[in-house]
Amino acid sequence: MSKLRVNITMSIDGYVAGPDQSLEHPLGVGGERLHGWLTALAVFQDMHGGDGGVVNESTAVVEQWFENIGATVMGRNMFGGGPGPRGDDPWRGWWGEDPPYHVPVFVLTHHAREPLPMQGGTTFHFVTGIESAVEQALAAADGKDVSVAGGANVIQQCLALHLVDEMQLSIVPVVLGGGARLFDNVGDAGLQLEQVRAVEAPGVTHISYRVR
Amino acid sequence: MSKLRVNITMSIDGYVAGPDQSLEHPLGVGGERLHGWLTALAVFQDMHGGDGGVVNESTAVVEQWFENIGATVMGRNMFGGGPGPRGDDPWRGWWGEDPPYHVPVFVLTHHAREPLPMQGGTTFHFVTGIESAVEQALAAADGKDVSVAGGANVIQQCLALHLVDEMQLSIVPVVLGGGARLFDNVGDAGLQLEQVRAVEAPGVTHISYRVR
Repeated sequence: MSKLRVNITMSIDGYVAGPDQSLEHPLGVGGERLHGWLTALAVFQDMHGGDGGVVNESTAVVEQWFENIGATVMGRNMFGGGPGPRGDDPWRGWWGEDPPYHVPVFVLTHHAREPLPMQGGTTFHFVTGIESAVEQALAAADGKDVSVAGGANVIQQCLALHLVDEMQLSIVPVVLGGGARLFDNVGDAGLQLEQVRAVEAPGVTHISYRVR
Repeated sequence: MSKLRVNITMSIDGYVAGPDQSLEHPLGVGGERLHGWLTALAVFQDMHGGDGGVVNESTAVVEQWFENIGATVMGRNMFGGGPGPRGDDPWRGWWGEDPPYHVPVFVLTHHAREPLPMQGGTTFHFVTGIESAVEQALAAADGKDVSVAGGANVIQQCLALHLVDEMQLSIVPVVLGGGARLFDNVGDAGLQLEQVRAVEAPGVTHISYRVR
């Protein structure tokens, strides 16, 4: 049975992006401090066309993020390009011509757009409404799992609707003091979490949960 | 050199007590869900005059909380007894005649009161102002460390003033959705955390940090 899986890095004070997200600061001001543990990894550099990087206890965790994933859901801000309808030279995402997804990616938006096939197996589909996006992603995944890439707002909607089956939080020793809180807007959902595993790694602790 | 140490259980959405704290609900509504991992332990039952309980990966963590502690600081609400001046039959804490501290305990309050010696080495001292409380606790600890027992407000004051040296957060798979957030009111303090260790245990992950 296909699962909806969330993997995201969270500051110890609960934020998954800093304040004042913009084109210049897609992760918000200071938000890049969340991901130092990740960008330092060889496995991350490989995926994004770089080289070098380290191998440590986080390596297997990150490799597992991508195992058995058949489709991805993401929010409009994560896809990027700013708000509003699209012009003649539409935005093609942050990731160049070969995005690191290699599966169908369902981008939540209110603005219709033809599917955008990229190299390497990634096709961006533009859809409206979280439940429809998840439904289409599960169909496209064809028995594999669906990952929810972010941002916070999309994950919150999935949590509030009890659509998430597994969540892995990579908790970093950073106090952001403001930004997008992962667990805003889900307080009344009555979420039941079960801790499955915790992995200590340099500068981060990965805790995985089953969600009901 | 004496250190100021904080050990506290936090929900995955950042709360160390539930909403609507009262005499009936000293940990706030639902706050007892934070501490199920702790009250299940034999080491906890021993300390509080019970018996039974389990031994697991959390046992050594809890034992270490109490190692080399020479004094404790706590807030007025954690000591209990309600707000305002004290009457003829003053409150003596939640813990009976032999509280599980066994060291001088400095209780923050605006209301002066004579020191209250209890059995087993605990004496409650009633002091005004967090900096004075920490200073007196460090003097009383005589080279050992000082623990900040809570609640959230006292820990926040210590964090904001950069008084905390070490913090261990026991992160539980609970979404409280409201209550006392550990990291409220410290966002502008520019806290620098360094992850020292993470311990996976049944129903909880303990992450310890050095704080600057």
